[in-house]
Amino acid sequence: MSNLLKEFQDYLAKMNQYEHVVTLLYWDMKTGAPKLGQDGHVAALTHFSTESFAMSTSEKMGEMLDGLAKTEEYDILTDTWKFIVKEMKRDYDRNKRIPADVYAAFVQTQAQAGNVWLEAKEKSDYSLFAPYLQKMIDLTIEMTGYTDPGKEVYEALLDQYEAGMDSATIDRLFEDLKEELIPLVKRILSQEEQAACPVFSGYFDPNGQRKVQEMLLDYIGFCKDAGSVGESEHPFTLNFSSKDVRLTNHYYEHDPLSAIFSAIHEGGHAIFEQNVNPEYDNTVAGSCRYMGLHESQSRFYENILGRNQNFWLPIYDKLGELLPLFQEIPLEDFYREINHVKNSFIRVNADEVTYCFHIILRYEMEKAIFRDHVPVNELPALWNKKMQEYLQITPANDAEGILQDMHWSDGGFGYFPSYLLGSIYDGMLLDTLQEELGNVDELLQNGQIKKITAWLNQKIHWYGSTRKPKEAIRSVCGKEISAEPLIRYFKEKYTKIYSI
Amino acid sequence: MSNLLKEFQDYLAKMNQYEHVVTLLYWDMKTGAPKLGQDGHVAALTHFSTESFAMSTSEKMGEMLDGLAKTEEYDILTDTWKFIVKEMKRDYDRNKRIPADVYAAFVQTQAQAGNVWLEAKEKSDYSLFAPYLQKMIDLTIEMTGYTDPGKEVYEALLDQYEAGMDSATIDRLFEDLKEELIPLVKRILSQEEQAACPVFSGYFDPNGQRKVQEMLLDYIGFCKDAGSVGESEHPFTLNFSSKDVRLTNHYYEHDPLSAIFSAIHEGGHAIFEQNVNPEYDNTVAGSCRYMGLHESQSRFYENILGRNQNFWLPIYDKLGELLPLFQEIPLEDFYREINHVKNSFIRVNADEVTYCFHIILRYEMEKAIFRDHVPVNELPALWNKKMQEYLQITPANDAEGILQDMHWSDGGFGYFPSYLLGSIYDGMLLDTLQEELGNVDELLQNGQIKKITAWLNQKIHWYGSTRKPKEAIRSVCGKEISAEPLIRYFKEKYTKIYSI
Repeated sequence: MSNLLKEFQDYLAKMNQYEHVVTLLYWDMKTGAPKLGQDGHVAALTHFSTESFAMSTSEKMGEMLDGLAKTEEYDILTDTWKFIVKEMKRDYDRNKRIPADVYAAFVQTQAQAGNVWLEAKEKSDYSLFAPYLQKMIDLTIEMTGYTDPGKEVYEALLDQYEAGMDSATIDRLFEDLKEELIPLVKRILSQEEQAACPVFSGYFDPNGQRKVQEMLLDYIGFCKDAGSVGESEHPFTLNFSSKDVRLTNHYYEHDPLSAIFSAIHEGGHAIFEQNVNPEYDNTVAGSCRYMGLHESQSRFYENILGRNQNFWLPIYDKLGELLPLFQEIPLEDFYREINHVKNSFIRVNADEVTYCFHIILRYEMEKAIFRDHVPVNELPALWNKKMQEYLQITPANDAEGILQDMHWSDGGFGYFPSYLLGSIYDGMLLDTLQEELGNVDELLQNGQIKKITAWLNQKIHWYGSTRKPKEAIRSVCGKEISAEPLIRYFKEKYTKIYSI
Repeated sequence: MSNLLKEFQDYLAKMNQYEHVVTLLYWDMKTGAPKLGQDGHVAALTHFSTESFAMSTSEKMGEMLDGLAKTEEYDILTDTWKFIVKEMKRDYDRNKRIPADVYAAFVQTQAQAGNVWLEAKEKSDYSLFAPYLQKMIDLTIEMTGYTDPGKEVYEALLDQYEAGMDSATIDRLFEDLKEELIPLVKRILSQEEQAACPVFSGYFDPNGQRKVQEMLLDYIGFCKDAGSVGESEHPFTLNFSSKDVRLTNHYYEHDPLSAIFSAIHEGGHAIFEQNVNPEYDNTVAGSCRYMGLHESQSRFYENILGRNQNFWLPIYDKLGELLPLFQEIPLEDFYREINHVKNSFIRVNADEVTYCFHIILRYEMEKAIFRDHVPVNELPALWNKKMQEYLQITPANDAEGILQDMHWSDGGFGYFPSYLLGSIYDGMLLDTLQEELGNVDELLQNGQIKKITAWLNQKIHWYGSTRKPKEAIRSVCGKEISAEPLIRYFKEKYTKIYSI
């Protein structure tokens, strides 16, 4: 190993210590820190993320990266380190251009906007949030001006969350979906309305729910020695390395399905991270940075597997033991309930079909903001118009409309399409998986889900961030990205469920 | 504020960020981090504690402290900052003398010895631990040679945990206790042996135990907004500031008393830290550094209050609601069980009277190690001899003998006396409290425990580390430290319980 590489690795190790504690502070703020302890954590988090950003954009970092890019150094690097140097050089050039005060303003406004958003949502008062949304939009435009000079803002944002993705591709994919799903949903909804199953609103002991989660995580292949579970207001997954991956959940006493499907969804994210090549730990090669690809794994577990009746066959008795009310629900009714298609206001509660419209709506809103420059005070009306267009319902207030998601308060413009891209990839992955491993229904019936996990580990997870999404899908499925397999999956599944 | 003071405070703020994350890393290692995540945390913890130690012993720190000690700077400091400067100067002079490699060796050996101790205890094999115990003894002697040159080693160690305390005082206090408690225990044990109450080994739902803990913490005055509760192998309390104080517990399905009394004990530590003057937060004035004084508060709640029948009167029904098996146990039997005096091997399970002998034994062992230089291979025999002398029993193996506590593996020589000093202070505090607030039984009967908490807040907690233990006790009780009140408390309580 060259002296320069050794120096670079030592530098990264120190930077990684900062990132390690930033991750831990964030985790603890969401899962354990008491109300009055939040400020102390925020101060520490600000300190260490600023230090980490400073290290990542220092002159020293630039010199080392330039040195390693020279032929005599670069040629003797392993492939992994070649990737790391190239990727970090790209990050460095982007971030180096951000003035320190702009970065600080962004971080600070993010925190403020998050708090204001929460209050605005609780009071269902968009006017509180509007000025902060405006600030986040302005700062986002300013930031992309530095990171991606000359690039159209929304293209830059899409690329940030799903490297290599662009709006032309997404437009095509989403148009294909709309064309097929609008009539499909219409046919489904023309059926007699599905009766609500009253048992689902009974009392489900949170401890039983915790045990169900443990059972499900173990069943799908989450490794307990390399991860743990916490509780937070909203479920999320984070990781320190492949050896320490944490997920959270929230248990509602009268809604067992929320925690069950969150457990499977976050479990999918976590299994991804636990199975990245450990050589990549604590580098930009590890921990998948592509949100569409990440969501493809969580949503594969949650929807493709978790909403398949056969997934539950081997474990439905166990579910009934842990949460006895399920003993009163035949598996067929359970299956129908977890695939109950209906137009509804809240994205995170939507079924897997109408979920697509929730994302398409947000994608179109984001284009309206950054491309058409629709003023923030006109956004709620636009939201409601699109809700009516795609879901034939109009929110009674902004809390169940435009204020429902926290993403924009965080500056996460361009993230939403990832969810649906993930499902689109899933349709393709399902096809390939069945070609290579056989019928997925049979695998699930026979309790062989860990075979599926092993396949995903090998085909997707192992590579971490070293393959961009398009490349990963092309490599695994041998095809370019298309919504056709997902559409076919929806049609086959729902014409059967709804006998249409 | 002078420029120098401002500079000093900024420096402390940065140092405090390091200590903040060291605390958090430790907390997470014990309460949440998965098995495979421990190494990553250890690396970060080592990094940040080394950085923090380097900052605390830097030339810069020395210059600032010297500058602030000069008349023109010192005279304009507030009393709090005068205390901080003096105290930090003392710490600085002590720690500055420790060579960096010795400090590093100490920290590293501590970690190794901890792991070896655990293995040795599990295998009940003292020979595994002996060489590491020897190393910790040698390093401790070397360290005190730097921190306290010219001072006898064990005196230096006692002073480290309970500033201002010395072995002459402890000898006197412990001799007084022995003289009175040996005959008292003999009289108690001459009574017919108390039958074990079988209900206590029934099944107690850990969730019920968690709810009991919540109820107890709330009852004694723990503030939920400024603290939280985790789970760990051994209960402990730690704090980031007065606004974020964490405690842990461990729930045994067939031993409800363990978690109940741990909750009250750790709750006492936590209430102390939550009620220190918040001005002292993140300085050496806050967070009580005196372990005897700290234990006096945890043990006041656990023993003086928690093992008083009247403590339970207002909440015993509630306990029965949360853990229904208690409905089968009359309060009188419960009271008798939680004050069941018997000679036993394990310190943490001992009743409050024989507990004194467990500490006296350890104190004498430590004097034998550091003063009489008894070789480590002779320590188990000495331990067993003393067990026989004070408790008339001999451990069947070293796991229930000399290997039972982790303190020595950690280099915590000199800590053990703190527990008993705490109880000795408690006897005195109880006297003063009753003089000022009235009969404690009546207060407890009437559910007025928060009056007691408020009194302790005002008399002890508020001062944090700004008063050394002897000074604190003198100031509150108007007397020098004496074991007489504790002995009187034991005699009155146990002659009544055992009708002797």
